[in-house]
This record gives sequence, C-alpha cells and structure tokens, in this order.
Amino acid sequence: MKSIITLTTDFGTWDGYVGAVKGVILSLNPGAEIVDISHEIPHQNIMAAAFCLFNSCSFFPEGTIHVAIVDPGVGSKRKALLIQTERYFFIGPDNGIFSLVLRQERLKKTIHLNNPKYFLGRQAPTFHGRDIFAPVAAYLSLGVKLDEFGPTLPKIVRLSLPRIEKRRGRIIGQIIHIDNFGNLVSNVTAQELSKIKKFKIRVRNRIISRLSETYSEVGKGKILAYQGSSGFLEVGIREGNAGLKLGVKIGDKIEIQI
Amino acid sequence: MKSIITLTTDFGTWDGYVGAVKGVILSLNPGAEIVDISHEIPHQNIMAAAFCLFNSCSFFPEGTIHVAIVDPGVGSKRKALLIQTERYFFIGPDNGIFSLVLRQERLKKTIHLNNPKYFLGRQAPTFHGRDIFAPVAAYLSLGVKLDEFGPTLPKIVRLSLPRIEKRRGRIIGQIIHIDNFGNLVSNVTAQELSKIKKFKIRVRNRIISRLSETYSEVGKGKILAYQGSSGFLEVGIREGNAGLKLGVKIGDKIEIQI
Amino acid sequence: MKSIITLTTDFGTWDGYVGAVKGVILSLNPGAEIVDISHEIPHQNIMAAAFCLFNSCSFFPEGTIHVAIVDPGVGSKRKALLIQTERYFFIGPDNGIFSLVLRQERLKKTIHLNNPKYFLGRQAPTFHGRDIFAPVAAYLSLGVKLDEFGPTLPKIVRLSLPRIEKRRGRIIGQIIHIDNFGNLVSNVTAQELSKIKKFKIRVRNRIISRLSETYSEVGKGKILAYQGSSGFLEVGIREGNAGLKLGVKIGDKIEIQI
Repeated sequence: MKSIITLTTDFGTWDGYVGAVKGVILSLNPGAEIVDISHEIPHQNIMAAAFCLFNSCSFFPEGTIHVAIVDPGVGSKRKALLIQTERYFFIGPDNGIFSLVLRQERLKKTIHLNNPKYFLGRQAPTFHGRDIFAPVAAYLSLGVKLDEFGPTLPKIVRLSLPRIEKRRGRIIGQIIHIDNFGNLVSNVTAQELSKIKKFKIRVRNRIISRLSETYSEVGKGKILAYQGSSGFLEVGIREGNAGLKLGVKIGDKIEIQI
Repeated sequence: MKSIITLTTDFGTWDGYVGAVKGVILSLNPGAEIVDISHEIPHQNIMAAAFCLFNSCSFFPEGTIHVAIVDPGVGSKRKALLIQTERYFFIGPDNGIFSLVLRQERLKKTIHLNNPKYFLGRQAPTFHGRDIFAPVAAYLSLGVKLDEFGPTLPKIVRLSLPRIEKRRGRIIGQIIHIDNFGNLVSNVTAQELSKIKKFKIRVRNRIISRLSETYSEVGKGKILAYQGSSGFLEVGIREGNAGLKLGVKIGDKIEIQI
Repeated sequence: MKSIITLTTDFGTWDGYVGAVKGVILSLNPGAEIVDISHEIPHQNIMAAAFCLFNSCSFFPEGTIHVAIVDPGVGSKRKALLIQTERYFFIGPDNGIFSLVLRQERLKKTIHLNNPKYFLGRQAPTFHGRDIFAPVAAYLSLGVKLDEFGPTLPKIVRLSLPRIEKRRGRIIGQIIHIDNFGNLVSNVTAQELSKIKKFKIRVRNRIISRLSETYSEVGKGKILAYQGSSGFLEVGIREGNAGLKLGVKIGDKIEIQI
C-alpha cells in the first residue's frame, strides 16, 4: 500500500540505526515510500528537531505519516505518541518534538501508543525508534485504525517558543535556531515584523538599519536582516556564517526599535 | 522489476560517487527501490561497516539485496563477492565486511564476481562500486541467476570479533564500536550477560555496579551499563558522550566481575 | 506519473530545507521518485557542485530531471534556469553549476524560468529551491511542455576549468577538486595523459615517477598517481588523505614532465 512515511532523527547514519528503522517499515509495508528529512539533528536537541519539522512537514501531501525521533527520555515514563491532524499523522516520543509544527496543523486526535500488538516482537528498551515508532508507522500506513494503537491522550507535552518582550519602543526577541549556513533565526514573526516602522536591529554589538529582501542587496561578507523562509526574522551574512562570525548562540537576544 | 537494494558505503555524498552508483542501478533496473543505509561509514573502516550492516540488514524484507562498499583493497587481488543467505543477497568486496551480519543470516552460496558481462562497459580500476557492484546488484534484481555472475567461491574472508577472556571470576571484553552518540559497544553478548550474577563493570577507571534497563534510570551526565539494541553490553552516559567523556577508544578493555 | 528527480544541494539536512523541497515535489507529483545525490556540497561552492554533478548525472536513465541548488546569488538578478539536453533535464540557478556536466551532455534547449504559474504560491525571496526549482521539476515530471516555463535563454553562465599550460616539455595543471577521501583531482584529462611518455609528476615538493592502475600497487601510506574514475589525473595516498598529508589546496599546481 503506497503511503509516504518521512523520517527525522538524530541517529546519524553510520551505526545502522536508521537502516534498522527503514527495514522494519519496509518489512511490514513493502509499498511504503520512505522519505528522509534528516538523520543529522543535533543529538538529543528536541527543539532543533521541532524546527526542522516546522520547516518541512507542511509541504508534504495530505495523509503523509511523519515519524520524528529525538528521544533523550527513551525508556522513561515519557509516552509514545501518535497525533492526527487535519492533514497528517505524526509519530514519535511525547516530548514536545511536534510543538512547532502544531502551530501550522490543526490537531484532531492524540493517541498514547501502548498496544504491544503493533510493536516489534523483540524490543530493546533503548530503541523505541526501531521497536515502536517504525512498526506503528508501517501499520498505520496499512490502514490500521487509530484507536487500535491505544487510548486517547488528553494532554501532550508542548514546548513553546520563548516570548518576545515589548517595552519602551523596543521588541526584544531571541535567537531560536541557527541554521546550516549560520543564519540566525529569531522568534520575531512576520506578523510582528509587519507592524514595525522604524527599523533598527541589534544583535550582539552589531546594528542593522533596514530589512532586506535578499542577500544580494548587501556586499559579500556584510550583515543583513530579512524575513526568512520559515516566516521569522533572520539575520545573516552574505556568503558567510553569521553564527560563527558574530559569536551568537541560541538564546541570545535580538533587539528591534519599533 | 521491484526489488529493494540497500547501500552502505564510506563514500560521503558530495563527490557524486554515490550518485553514480544510484544512476547505474536505476539505468539498468528503473524499478529498483534504492534504500540508503549509510554513506558516512568512517573511511576504509571495514569493521565499522560490518557493524552497521549487523545492526540493520536483518530487519529488511526477504529478498533484499544489500550492497556494501568499504573497499581499501579496490583493484588489488581482493575478490568481488556475491553472497546468498537464506533471506538475502549481499554484494561487495571480499574483505570481511559481511562477517558480522553472517552471524545472523544462514549462508547458502558464495560467488566470485568475475563475469564482465555484468560489469559496466567502461571500468575504472579504482571504482568497483560504480562499475561492478552496482550493475551486478541491478542485474540480480532483474532476475539474473547467481551462477551467471561467476564461479562459487569456496572460502571468503572473515573478520572475527575479539574473544572475551574469562579468568578468576572476571570476564574481560573489549570495546568493539563507539556509536554516533558516544555509546561504547562491547563484545560481551546477551548470552554471556545472562550468566552474570554479581555485577560490577570497570571501563577505564570507572566502576558501574548494576545493569540498567534504560538511560532514565540514572541522572543526566551519569554513566550506566545496559544491554544495547544490538544485543551487546554497552556503556553510555545519559544525554552525554561516553566515548569522549571517558576517553575510551575501540579496543579498550571492559572488565566484569562474575 | 513516474519520473526520477535527483537532488544536489548545499542545504545540509537538519534545518528541514531539503524536507521542504521533497514535500513540494511529492505534493505536486506523488509518483515522482526523488533520488538524493548530495545535500552536503560545501556551502556556496558552485564548482564543487558542478564536479559532483559531473561525476553522477550521466549515469542516470534518460529522462531524469536533475535539480541542483547551490545558490549564493538567490534573489539577485541571476536567472532561474531549465536546460534540456539530449538525455536529461537540469534545473537550478544560472550560475554555472551545470558547466561541467554539459561537457558530457549535448545541449538542446535553455529556458529562463519566469512563469510564476509554475512557482509555489507563497514565495520567499531567499529560498528558490523550495519555491521555484522544486515545483518546476514536479510540473516538468508531470509533462508540462518546456516552453510553458518561460522564454529561451540565449546565453547561460559557464564556468570553465582552468586551462593546463604546456611549456618546455612540461604540462602544468591545477588541483580542481579534493574528494572525501582526500584524493587530489587535477584538470589533466585522460586524453592528455595518453600522450605522456616519460612520467614524472610533481605536487608540492613530492615527486611521483609512474602512473599506477590502483592503490594496491603502492604500500600503505604511500603516494601514487592514477587516472581517476572521473577521467582526470588524480594523486592520492593509499588508505590516507593526500589533501591533508601534503597540505594541498584547490588551485595548487601539478607539474608533469612529458
């Protein structure tokens, strides 16, 4: 049965853990179409995984099953989770990993995965990716009904973005993600941005006085601010790595005069 | 013709070598389903590849063709190999890369790939992945009979895990793999583990006095020992990198009181 | 509709940018078969991407759509490009990224992608990969005619390999690529190589006095020269990293006595 199953993990590829997950899925549903989103999420960084899912999941066709496994609490009391939204299914640990993508998708149902009938026979308490999430994704793609997998979970773990503060003509936000290219993604949304008239941004001790559309508006090696493709205010350096150059870390402040 | 072909290599992706292998396979059998296991095996590390295959191959559906290419001896007298087991096919250099997975799978036949009819027309002596292993995998997936590819190979190269030593109430094992997360995988099997009564492990100068089920049984940053998902005794640090923290390397001793 | 679409980018995987591109393609054409060539091209290194495509594209089946996105000029005046060759389609920025592969493939048509009908509805000026190249690839795979996407582009950007110099019995070439394994790829072609009689190569202050067929002709850790799988003269170290060991960088000279 054809069905898209995406994978987002912090497993890296060279130990064979990702291979095991793929094998389990294809053994149960040879028709599944597995799509790698990433296996290089920084280890145990749930927020980074949440951001990766936020940037990618909503572009997939309706019915896609998104499996995400960054799971520092594996084997603890953290629950195994299946979420149904209006357009998708999400499977992974109940640790907040789906928090950001749920800002885009309309929640319909949440299931606590506790029916061992849909788990792998031989289970390792440290590898739920292979033994629980992979087989559940495969069975779901084969048409098993949601309620079969376990009871409704009334409350799921949510991580929230840090709030922006507003005071005396300033917005104070934070860097919430630094991407591959070193671009600094802030928690200032497009909606907030649209209200800003005067424009003066401070990150570390650098000041940016206008909002650019694209990198090419500034010279090579120059700093710029722009609305990023994720919808948030970003700061980058043309053909350079802003994170490294400015020494900015996640959680650092970004200040905007309004 | 639909058939799963998995790839495990040390090629990295950015030179296009993996792309070439995929292109060759799809040109010969457009119906092949290529599944990436890894292209990030540490360069020329046959044992690491063997471990990756051991962790992943046996989860795939029957009939899967597993291609593995970590090939420091490419172009030398080392032979090109096709293995048939009860459930799978394995294709790669005859350098021991399939040694560990053959602990799980029942060997049926070994073929020395020497029939150039199934090689790529233009061959480079340094890239058997593209010119021999990829086309052979594709032809095999199209139903070419095993004996067509070459004669039986009576003896193949086997790498063995270092043996554990037992003396005066102690088991002395070795670290045989350090995974992505820094977890230390030893050569002490589940079977050995089950015989152990007193439990006291020493790695470097650290002592662990019980076997945990999961990471969550210890505090963050604390060391633990557990039966890993590969079936071996492992030592890890909760949400930390045991390899780096303890300065352990492959081949280092692990000692267990029994 | 079944059609192979390959992806070659410098996005890395962990921000979800690659996931977004895949999602866009599969939403428009669920039958597309996406093949990852690489997402680890060194950031904004057009020449490295060109080399990766050169090594891989021509092995794919006829009709394959190759999408390549290394795009430092995104949002500038650089054009969005669709190329038809005798056997393939190529989609990406008009910045020279397809220069090398066009040495192998016969050009038929070049189109300036400017018809927003085939772009994603909501566009970000910094992410043409997701918003222009991905949907165009998907529509093309669905059978949309080339002329629908925009007008013919009479002239495209071409990057050329540095020329080799010949003087007084010597060929002076350059290192144009250093691969994953540290092998040094030069701009000296097989054709040039075949004319050479005396053989004496100098890279840095090392001299190599013969052309090897394979690594195994020299001892471990020894330097050798050979015709690489890409067709160029290469210098490597058996089971070692020549780039690091010799301290060679792209652009460094290689000198051959003829």
